Amino acid sequence: MKVKPKLRLGLPKGSLQEATIEKMAKAGFNISVSSRSYVPYIDDEEIEVRLIRAQEISRYVELGYLDCGITGHDWIVENNSKVHEVGEFIFSKATRQPSRWVVAVPENSPIRTIHDLAGKRIATEVVSLTKRYLRKHKVKAEVEFSWGATEVKAHELVDAIVEITETGSSLKANNLRIVDTVLVSTPRLIANHKSWKDQWKRRKIENLALLLRGAIEAEAKVVLKMNIAEKNLGTLLKSLPALRQPTISSLSQPGWVAVETVIDEHIVRELIPQLKAAGAEGIIEFALNKVVY
Amino acid sequence: MKVKPKLRLGLPKGSLQEATIEKMAKAGFNISVSSRSYVPYIDDEEIEVRLIRAQEISRYVELGYLDCGITGHDWIVENNSKVHEVGEFIFSKATRQPSRWVVAVPENSPIRTIHDLAGKRIATEVVSLTKRYLRKHKVKAEVEFSWGATEVKAHELVDAIVEITETGSSLKANNLRIVDTVLVSTPRLIANHKSWKDQWKRRKIENLALLLRGAIEAEAKVVLKMNIAEKNLGTLLKSLPALRQPTISSLSQPGWVAVETVIDEHIVRELIPQLKAAGAEGIIEFALNKVVY
Amino acid sequence: MKVKPKLRLGLPKGSLQEATIEKMAKAGFNISVSSRSYVPYIDDEEIEVRLIRAQEISRYVELGYLDCGITGHDWIVENNSKVHEVGEFIFSKATRQPSRWVVAVPENSPIRTIHDLAGKRIATEVVSLTKRYLRKHKVKAEVEFSWGATEVKAHELVDAIVEITETGSSLKANNLRIVDTVLVSTPRLIANHKSWKDQWKRRKIENLALLLRGAIEAEAKVVLKMNIAEKNLGTLLKSLPALRQPTISSLSQPGWVAVETVIDEHIVRELIPQLKAAGAEGIIEFALNKVVY
Amino acid sequence: MKVKPKLRLGLPKGSLQEATIEKMAKAGFNISVSSRSYVPYIDDEEIEVRLIRAQEISRYVELGYLDCGITGHDWIVENNSKVHEVGEFIFSKATRQPSRWVVAVPENSPIRTIHDLAGKRIATEVVSLTKRYLRKHKVKAEVEFSWGATEVKAHELVDAIVEITETGSSLKANNLRIVDTVLVSTPRLIANHKSWKDQWKRRKIENLALLLRGAIEAEAKVVLKMNIAEKNLGTLLKSLPALRQPTISSLSQPGWVAVETVIDEHIVRELIPQLKAAGAEGIIEFALNKVVY
Amino acid sequence: MKVKPKLRLGLPKGSLQEATIEKMAKAGFNISVSSRSYVPYIDDEEIEVRLIRAQEISRYVELGYLDCGITGHDWIVENNSKVHEVGEFIFSKATRQPSRWVVAVPENSPIRTIHDLAGKRIATEVVSLTKRYLRKHKVKAEVEFSWGATEVKAHELVDAIVEITETGSSLKANNLRIVDTVLVSTPRLIANHKSWKDQWKRRKIENLALLLRGAIEAEAKVVLKMNIAEKNLGTLLKSLPALRQPTISSLSQPGWVAVETVIDEHIVRELIPQLKAAGAEGIIEFALNKVVY
Amino acid sequence: MKVKPKLRLGLPKGSLQEATIEKMAKAGFNISVSSRSYVPYIDDEEIEVRLIRAQEISRYVELGYLDCGITGHDWIVENNSKVHEVGEFIFSKATRQPSRWVVAVPENSPIRTIHDLAGKRIATEVVSLTKRYLRKHKVKAEVEFSWGATEVKAHELVDAIVEITETGSSLKANNLRIVDTVLVSTPRLIANHKSWKDQWKRRKIENLALLLRGAIEAEAKVVLKMNIAEKNLGTLLKSLPALRQPTISSLSQPGWVAVETVIDEHIVRELIPQLKAAGAEGIIEFALNKVVY
Repeated sequence: MKVKPKLRLGLPKGSLQEATIEKMAKAGFNISVSSRSYVPYIDDEEIEVRLIRAQEISRYVELGYLDCGITGHDWIVENNSKVHEVGEFIFSKATRQPSRWVVAVPENSPIRTIHDLAGKRIATEVVSLTKRYLRKHKVKAEVEFSWGATEVKAHELVDAIVEITETGSSLKANNLRIVDTVLVSTPRLIANHKSWKDQWKRRKIENLALLLRGAIEAEAKVVLKMNIAEKNLGTLLKSLPALRQPTISSLSQPGWVAVETVIDEHIVRELIPQLKAAGAEGIIEFALNKVVY
Repeated sequence: MKVKPKLRLGLPKGSLQEATIEKMAKAGFNISVSSRSYVPYIDDEEIEVRLIRAQEISRYVELGYLDCGITGHDWIVENNSKVHEVGEFIFSKATRQPSRWVVAVPENSPIRTIHDLAGKRIATEVVSLTKRYLRKHKVKAEVEFSWGATEVKAHELVDAIVEITETGSSLKANNLRIVDTVLVSTPRLIANHKSWKDQWKRRKIENLALLLRGAIEAEAKVVLKMNIAEKNLGTLLKSLPALRQPTISSLSQPGWVAVETVIDEHIVRELIPQLKAAGAEGIIEFALNKVVY
Repeated sequence: MKVKPKLRLGLPKGSLQEATIEKMAKAGFNISVSSRSYVPYIDDEEIEVRLIRAQEISRYVELGYLDCGITGHDWIVENNSKVHEVGEFIFSKATRQPSRWVVAVPENSPIRTIHDLAGKRIATEVVSLTKRYLRKHKVKAEVEFSWGATEVKAHELVDAIVEITETGSSLKANNLRIVDTVLVSTPRLIANHKSWKDQWKRRKIENLALLLRGAIEAEAKVVLKMNIAEKNLGTLLKSLPALRQPTISSLSQPGWVAVETVIDEHIVRELIPQLKAAGAEGIIEFALNKVVY
Repeated sequence: MKVKPKLRLGLPKGSLQEATIEKMAKAGFNISVSSRSYVPYIDDEEIEVRLIRAQEISRYVELGYLDCGITGHDWIVENNSKVHEVGEFIFSKATRQPSRWVVAVPENSPIRTIHDLAGKRIATEVVSLTKRYLRKHKVKAEVEFSWGATEVKAHELVDAIVEITETGSSLKANNLRIVDTVLVSTPRLIANHKSWKDQWKRRKIENLALLLRGAIEAEAKVVLKMNIAEKNLGTLLKSLPALRQPTISSLSQPGWVAVETVIDEHIVRELIPQLKAAGAEGIIEFALNKVVY
Repeated sequence: MKVKPKLRLGLPKGSLQEATIEKMAKAGFNISVSSRSYVPYIDDEEIEVRLIRAQEISRYVELGYLDCGITGHDWIVENNSKVHEVGEFIFSKATRQPSRWVVAVPENSPIRTIHDLAGKRIATEVVSLTKRYLRKHKVKAEVEFSWGATEVKAHELVDAIVEITETGSSLKANNLRIVDTVLVSTPRLIANHKSWKDQWKRRKIENLALLLRGAIEAEAKVVLKMNIAEKNLGTLLKSLPALRQPTISSLSQPGWVAVETVIDEHIVRELIPQLKAAGAEGIIEFALNKVVY
Repeated sequence: MKVKPKLRLGLPKGSLQEATIEKMAKAGFNISVSSRSYVPYIDDEEIEVRLIRAQEISRYVELGYLDCGITGHDWIVENNSKVHEVGEFIFSKATRQPSRWVVAVPENSPIRTIHDLAGKRIATEVVSLTKRYLRKHKVKAEVEFSWGATEVKAHELVDAIVEITETGSSLKANNLRIVDTVLVSTPRLIANHKSWKDQWKRRKIENLALLLRGAIEAEAKVVLKMNIAEKNLGTLLKSLPALRQPTISSLSQPGWVAVETVIDEHIVRELIPQLKAAGAEGIIEFALNKVVY
């Protein structure tokens, strides 16, 4: 009997776990985690899921214990892992901003630029990344590993921190000021180099990437649909380049057409007032599960 | 450097907070509240959000500390606030009923009409509103401010209460009987009179109102879509006035058309059986994010 | 004054309660449960809801205390209830598998087939069902009622258990092996025989079944929509029988059509890569509230 | 190598679990339950703990799967289990009342005495117990098994229920009236007859009973300590029989003694005002871990 | 049949509810609150408990709907209630500080003294109290009722607030500075004047006060017990006035005595090092349930 | 004005935080943590508390940012920190066992002794500690840092782990076997060397240590008190060496004495049956807040 091939997929355990499982479900892969077993259930017999800290996934993909995994660009760089990067995703819908590792100091600190860090002590969870950044800028400073709660340390225990942020509001709430950006990071699907050369695994990984991207992009997009008099259509399309490549279908009501387009959700709030002004009627917006161009 | 204008928007803190933030997100404005800061984050640099008790929003809009705010009609009346009312919304999807402040008494109370309240003691959170109501009906009664848990008082501590209700089921569970309605209230978007005269602020507020109404109305509406033989179309439309202004598009299958319409969600359960009877096929219903006529 | 007729509907209290109420809401019936009252609120004046354990609903439907109810096939059989079965639903979206009552034993147990159960002790919540199953297979064994936590008993207190499972993962986590399936069960809408003969009640129940099935089936389905060059359409449709009965509409762009179809969500992950390969563009997927054929 | 003997002890899983584990800890046996294992940890290598529903413990003690267990008198009777009863405890400190299974009916029911139950339908979790009770009183009625939420059924689904209560306040809140008491029940430590004959096991069980009773009785008792002039001592002791067998020690202050006694906590609120009146000074009360006479 | 007299006792609903019920239990009165009933259970048939907002208790005691109640001094003053004050308690063990209503302003506010409040706007939950305070100091300012979240208002909406605090740490965390103290408040047991003249009720209230004070004072006290050589006793007692009125008992070991005393818990951390230095041995500290002098 | 000296004390943030704060409270120091501030409140104006990860406390004590701190022996060794060790505590009452870092492997692993680790890969949170241990035993193996969830890795990702355990039950539940103990660790109070030389700080730290040890030891001890006939006293004391140094006081009842002793809680369950056998009566046990020899 021939053994069925299996794809071993590493997903981030912990703070990103729930969001990742939700994204996988939107992509069409249902996963459930039991408190009694370290092997999560997935409704695809060709995949085996392992939950591993985001910090470690790239290491185990590199070593071949996992065929592929989802993790942040930051940890791939921090671990200096040799892996194949299959694709990049943006997970956070609310902010639409990638994560950034930044140098931060108390608001009233004399440190203003990266060069003021010379001779200082910096606490961070990404020690290698920070050292590389300092080397690149030819700044000599002491970097120490922080086990967490790094923001609090900036006020007393160290001179500066390198910490992750999206909107900066947590730093602001801690009265910290951003001095510089060390690394911009987004989630990535990565593959072990050997697995990527295996035809079956590669096709499986590519399909996973296609569906996952389709699901994630769909979160930031919506369908807009409206009716408009045919005579106003040209003006509408010309003045609104955001409406690129709409699907236009004729309506039974003579002289009117239906316009439908997939669009970034975050420009809708600017667009709808303009559409109304341009003569659009019966504008409706609805959500998408997936979008694949 | 010219300072960018900002719109200061008051949203209700407390029991309505989560629902309001969810509505704002549907309208396209993402807000996140941090336990470390009293200023919520909003992904629109032209707006500043403040979370304030619903009871007080109209007062601070009137005074000009806020340009606009969302609050209930009840508290605008209770505070007797001079503000511009931009729009009215209905938030509760489940009940589709506005809130009502009602006079309630124990089920076995001798009080049957408003006139039986003469000489009695009434507890309520809306003292001004209740006094005005009694004056209007020329009833003299004592009105005392209730700090909460008003329903329980009706049984022992006072003769009647004026309390808010939607479906009346909480009053019923407390064995209370409704005597009369004092005020029907819905959420409103209100603006400070001076801010309303500022062109930039007014346009910003109007767009907010447009998008918020579009999001809120969409919650009570759905899209129905079905295929029908062209010959049955006339009968369908005539017999079902609810299907007013459908979008009709021809199908590649000769003699058949697709009918699509936006409709109140709560009549769907009556409509679908009728549609099937009229020859509709492949009926599908889906949800909307926004609907703007 | 004529009393309005009412339909008394039993819904399962406990672990299935939340899911059932959510399904009812999708079907168009909003229910809210108060901790102060044993009668839930429903926004349909013609229905009265009672929350009753799934195990007992069929008994009270049979006795006529309820006109109809939603419960599992397993408990109808266990109680040997004489009721009219109106329809069958599948509730679990995640697994798409019906519940099964199975005989399970520890992984290292010598029991391999049902016949090895002869002379053994079996613990289960479904004593009648298990006894009937043993009789059918002419196996004599002792069956004892289990008040719960049955899985743990299999290791020490009894020789085998008859327990419910969907994916089998809870059994596996308890190191139990499935020996045989006793009964496959799905949720059913059942009616009292007399109520079913009452014309008003029957129509009310049938509509409820239609809407509930429409809502439940919609959970496992999605709409796929894509654009394709007309010349590729034939190949697409031929090679992909899953796309049966699509709605095809012409686009304003000459030579291109829009294809739209309702499809099982769980095949989408196989289908989308194939669609892309066949020339489809702008593939979007969105969710449904209801689907009624 | 000789195998160390082990005592297998069944403790009630579910609603009584936490309270029982707390009592065991007070008796000196620390138990911790892991979600990953069905075998709880106990810091006594001579004991193995199993968590089993209170309803089933007596059955598995009788069969010898457990050497001993803690369960209610009610379930021993319901299961008609042949076990050795080692001791009786009272767990509920708040009410100081044993549990009672009572016949309850709606407040306005015509059923007033047990004889009015003739020909009626009764729902209960203790079917055998209820049937035995009816037989004893020569009343013929139908008894059906209730899977729970029995109180709600009394209003519509059945004529009466047999339900457990301590203070009766839950029944009162459900507008139910108690007709008669079927059985008064307290927690018991029971042993398998054969285990009880094993000398090692018996001594182990007896010590467990001693310590557990010491811990449980201590919850309902306190130490009162006070100073009093020697001349007032006689009057104090005579007038207050509750202070039986106090420990009296002389103080260095001439003419004064210290009186110390262990006393039921629930009479302290009556006693302290009397003690003050009798001349006691510096009265202090403190809690006990264990009390063994 | 003579009706048994009952004492109606009002306890604060809401944030102080749990602490008050715990104190009552320590005093010997067990109360349990059901979500199904507005009348809590108490294990004393002579008392009826009502849970009412702390703000309103004094009002309903004055009116006679309650015989007595526990509430803060602040609300008695705010409501200007004519009631008999039976006793004063200190509830907060952690801080050992009474609550204070203080005038607070942003740290960088120009307001430094009460006189700087002239012409300003002040938000507070205690409007009467604040107005009285301003009148006393002959300061004219506008006072407006705050429905809550008052601290946040101080930064933008008003010039100052009058807010409650214990340690001031919440104000500090909000970057507010205390300008002056308006009122120091502690919990009180109050009685209706007429009830206080009723002999049975008065005795019942006095006993309740005695036990409650005994329980509350016990929380802030401990028993210290130690052995010491008789020859060192004099020095010990002289140098440590905190050890006033210890109970000294002779030990069987010649030349040694046991010293036992009830002492404020918060001085123990200073005392124990001194006791060791003075020759005390075997020092033990234990907690008290009640202490009545 | 002279600045008051302050002692900066580091307490472990995270999983040990709540337990440590509870211990501090028992020692007489009340700490409260606010979500709005990173500086916890403590009711001693001479102390400033900082919450820092247990892993990092020794580092910041060594550097002088903290005067002293509570952390585990393991992290002092891992960080190789040069600090003064003031005292050792045992925190876990339930197990009475110190934490151990152990080498663990899957139950069916061929690794049996430390020497089988040669050439293997080991994951752990304590990389330095593990490397030192391997060097000491002259074993060459690869050690990699684990960010957490280390137990799961032992099954697939690495050959062995070095993980912390108390009772070993979590390892057992994960089907892991302990190969060897790397380090036994207990909580320590440590001080910066310079702070320790400051007289004021040293006295403050010593008192803190005294009180903390008094509180922690009290958790594992109880007071036993009993009455016994004088003639049986000698036998009792001789046969029960655990009762060393009891306080014996004469009772007013001739021929009887009261015996009181502080004793390890975990031997009480063995002792009480023996005491009864030896003629002791009225045995009571109660808890201690502190015990200082």
